[in-house]
Amino acid sequence: MIRAILLVSCPDQKGITAAVTDFVFRHGGNILHAAQHTDAQAGVFFMRIEWDMDGFSVPRNEVWAALRPLAERFRMDWQLHFSDEKTRLAIFVSRHMHCLFDLMSRYQAGQLPNCEIKLIVSNHLDAESLARQWGIGFLHTPVTVECKAQAETAQLAALKAQGVDLLVLARYHQILSESFIEHFQDRIINIHHSFLPAFAGSSPYAQAYEKGVKIIGATSHYVIAALDQGPIIEQDTVRIDHRHSISDLVEEGQDLERRVLYRAVRWHLEHKILCYGNKTVIFE
Amino acid sequence: MIRAILLVSCPDQKGITAAVTDFVFRHGGNILHAAQHTDAQAGVFFMRIEWDMDGFSVPRNEVWAALRPLAERFRMDWQLHFSDEKTRLAIFVSRHMHCLFDLMSRYQAGQLPNCEIKLIVSNHLDAESLARQWGIGFLHTPVTVECKAQAETAQLAALKAQGVDLLVLARYHQILSESFIEHFQDRIINIHHSFLPAFAGSSPYAQAYEKGVKIIGATSHYVIAALDQGPIIEQDTVRIDHRHSISDLVEEGQDLERRVLYRAVRWHLEHKILCYGNKTVIFE
Amino acid sequence: MIRAILLVSCPDQKGITAAVTDFVFRHGGNILHAAQHTDAQAGVFFMRIEWDMDGFSVPRNEVWAALRPLAERFRMDWQLHFSDEKTRLAIFVSRHMHCLFDLMSRYQAGQLPNCEIKLIVSNHLDAESLARQWGIGFLHTPVTVECKAQAETAQLAALKAQGVDLLVLARYHQILSESFIEHFQDRIINIHHSFLPAFAGSSPYAQAYEKGVKIIGATSHYVIAALDQGPIIEQDTVRIDHRHSISDLVEEGQDLERRVLYRAVRWHLEHKILCYGNKTVIFE
Amino acid sequence: MIRAILLVSCPDQKGITAAVTDFVFRHGGNILHAAQHTDAQAGVFFMRIEWDMDGFSVPRNEVWAALRPLAERFRMDWQLHFSDEKTRLAIFVSRHMHCLFDLMSRYQAGQLPNCEIKLIVSNHLDAESLARQWGIGFLHTPVTVECKAQAETAQLAALKAQGVDLLVLARYHQILSESFIEHFQDRIINIHHSFLPAFAGSSPYAQAYEKGVKIIGATSHYVIAALDQGPIIEQDTVRIDHRHSISDLVEEGQDLERRVLYRAVRWHLEHKILCYGNKTVIFE
Repeated sequence: MIRAILLVSCPDQKGITAAVTDFVFRHGGNILHAAQHTDAQAGVFFMRIEWDMDGFSVPRNEVWAALRPLAERFRMDWQLHFSDEKTRLAIFVSRHMHCLFDLMSRYQAGQLPNCEIKLIVSNHLDAESLARQWGIGFLHTPVTVECKAQAETAQLAALKAQGVDLLVLARYHQILSESFIEHFQDRIINIHHSFLPAFAGSSPYAQAYEKGVKIIGATSHYVIAALDQGPIIEQDTVRIDHRHSISDLVEEGQDLERRVLYRAVRWHLEHKILCYGNKTVIFE
Repeated sequence: MIRAILLVSCPDQKGITAAVTDFVFRHGGNILHAAQHTDAQAGVFFMRIEWDMDGFSVPRNEVWAALRPLAERFRMDWQLHFSDEKTRLAIFVSRHMHCLFDLMSRYQAGQLPNCEIKLIVSNHLDAESLARQWGIGFLHTPVTVECKAQAETAQLAALKAQGVDLLVLARYHQILSESFIEHFQDRIINIHHSFLPAFAGSSPYAQAYEKGVKIIGATSHYVIAALDQGPIIEQDTVRIDHRHSISDLVEEGQDLERRVLYRAVRWHLEHKILCYGNKTVIFE
Repeated sequence: MIRAILLVSCPDQKGITAAVTDFVFRHGGNILHAAQHTDAQAGVFFMRIEWDMDGFSVPRNEVWAALRPLAERFRMDWQLHFSDEKTRLAIFVSRHMHCLFDLMSRYQAGQLPNCEIKLIVSNHLDAESLARQWGIGFLHTPVTVECKAQAETAQLAALKAQGVDLLVLARYHQILSESFIEHFQDRIINIHHSFLPAFAGSSPYAQAYEKGVKIIGATSHYVIAALDQGPIIEQDTVRIDHRHSISDLVEEGQDLERRVLYRAVRWHLEHKILCYGNKTVIFE
Repeated sequence: MIRAILLVSCPDQKGITAAVTDFVFRHGGNILHAAQHTDAQAGVFFMRIEWDMDGFSVPRNEVWAALRPLAERFRMDWQLHFSDEKTRLAIFVSRHMHCLFDLMSRYQAGQLPNCEIKLIVSNHLDAESLARQWGIGFLHTPVTVECKAQAETAQLAALKAQGVDLLVLARYHQILSESFIEHFQDRIINIHHSFLPAFAGSSPYAQAYEKGVKIIGATSHYVIAALDQGPIIEQDTVRIDHRHSISDLVEEGQDLERRVLYRAVRWHLEHKILCYGNKTVIFE
């Protein structure tokens, strides 16, 4: 069964839900999921609707055009996806492999729907043999102050060559340039190993230890130019206490990082995330 | 602003969402919330839709009739509520007062929307002075094997006299008869102090202690004739360890009970719960 | 049964545990609980030991002197408590009553061991009738820029008159002066309605809403001169999502605040907290 | 640094803690951790103490004999371990590989202290190539009603040949015979994919789905002859709702199973678990 997925945000007004569901129904589509949200304060309406293309009277390649009048009438920002389109991923990593391992094992177990992992990118060589073992391309781009621009140029070329749609920074400890980020707006997911906005920047576990917090967290978010400031997708926390050393925090935290990054990547692949302002709506 | 709330369950089929949203829109209603769920395994569709009655072209007392053709076409079970209708509650309690206290303090703080607490019923006298202090009617119905039927007759009379719509068993340690329960199908909420189906019946904390579990829970559910077997509305859990005595479990658990019962009552008052089979859909 | 409770921190070295437990045993005391912790990084040793005074050969009023040689040998910071000593509390509150209500209901239910609530202090009058109802003294000290010093003088006088040992700021929205705080070092517990260090300062729920976090928290801590920077005692968190308005956050958060403040107060009353540097050891 | 770890349980009486800590101190040992617990209801005392063997005046191979008089005086059940002894593990698995994968990746990351994984045992062939890839022995023992005894004989022989100390049933869907279990009392850890005692037996996720619970769990426990009834080591839970299909429960649950099994194995390897009656004390 092929499903169409429509994501919409627009100024809030009467009749949007009715118009969209009616569009689907009128053309013979069976609605599988529909969810909406209104940010009353901001006056913005959000919707995600998913329907079965089986028996839908508009051919797939004409759905976009058929929706356009509706979209224009309500001044929608909108995305249209089909469930058999595969998102192409690149995973960026430095020296900590646990998130990469976790994503790969879920990928192999079929838990990352409709995607192809095309490339592993790293400023180190630690992941190279793993990439080879998994049969995935590996790009080594050492990053120093001098060669950063050069590294990004090489990365962009490889990402373009592979048609990559989504970048996952699975503990990639390099700051991407603003111009690089612009190529992938709302399409770079980072995992930060703290409960943001607490402990942004480097060494968050050491910061948490110094502060004496009783709970640590992890945060996945889209990357924007401002470091660790992009729209938060998912967070989770775990209790700790005075008996935990920094290395205990690191270990407890790795479990959090894995889960919090995985959920963000999965929701992105399922087209369940809408960004607005600096926040996200998750149609879980 | 007065809101209409429609709760629907029916056999799954094409066009339901579109038909319902179109009904609201065609009559000038602004949809505030709409959520749906399909149980693919059971082939059942569920929907909750809430709209602003301001500017709605069908007068309030005719909405029911206007909806009927639609409901019949899709063979719907349906409920229609308006946001200014007050649900009338009775709270049943034995000797533990913590859930009663919690509900009363939230009621006074305005956290139990659109309800009136009309009556406190107890087989003991512990709550009497509290009821008086709060200005709420108190019915004392001692329950022994001999006088149980008599007690229920008195309770039914008082509930009827007060027009009570919802019974909340806030640690009421008596088993209601099947015939009593039939008067209030899906309208009696109980709190059980365990993570059901584990530790049904009496003394769940002592059972949990004996078993050596590492987590305890609480469960709120609608009451059916089979003891502790009704549709689960909400559950929550908390970690414990070997250092907890039974009385520690009781204390930890009381916090759970309060929250888990409160959420169930609140969702019921907001018309967010649909029962089917022996399960619930919660349109949170 | 009267219990003695000894809290110790000192430079880490061999033989401390043995020396302390031997002291108790040699004088016929039965050890009920003993826990220790070493901060290897800081080289500091912490211990809490609790024993039955029944059959203990040193009379209660001589225990302190009997322990002194041991304490000096290991250069201990130490506190000695007996389980029948009552801590005298004052609760400070502004206009939000939920934490005050919660503490009072637990106090009445016997869940706050060995304490007497002597005084409610407020810059508003909202709590006055409650205090009267509970039979607890009420001190009204309006606070403006001009009269702050005067208010604190009145507060100090009342606290001294009542022999208050512990101040609980149960949503008291005034900043205490450094000189005031010095009178009660490690004896003022505040509840802050965020997951510190995130969202320090005012309106943390509004800050959390703006930031779009997926989890909110609450933090109880001892008060030091630097605002919201004191040693953290306890934290807890709860998941939220894009559907939560600021007022939803406030309501969800109030449950957190209640629990997180209660735990801190209880642990303090049970002499389970040791401060060091800007952190706490909790002998839970 | 080599550490000695002493685990003790005995009838509760005065002076145990003092006697044990004094033993360590008198022989020049530095206590690194000491924790005790008393089950007042059962009258049983439990202790775990860990000290640095550096500078300890009793040679390692004589510690046992040196402790014996103390142990006999207090009628102790006791275990003595040294931190450089490696526990030898066998992992039993059927067709679900997620727990095996998780344990192996943590093993390779150094998160399973002081152990060697010697053998993977399965009634299926799915894990064979993985075992080979990891360089670990693989034993294939198909199990049918007829050949179960024969399979267990082969397993026992292999386990004995490899000197295996701990069996981890990482989703091994076969019931071990009572006589097999007797060889490894308190040394077989199973993961059950429900919050026991709820949903014991087969297909717990399907049971949970049918029941409509709002939270699912996982339980790790030592194996005894009674199915799913052994002493619980660790449990954890996660919220679900009506939108989760059985396969969603399976996926959510796998994360729980991994963590809950890992913690149990790790605590066992660190000698932090004491069994008594049908419960455990965890010196976390």
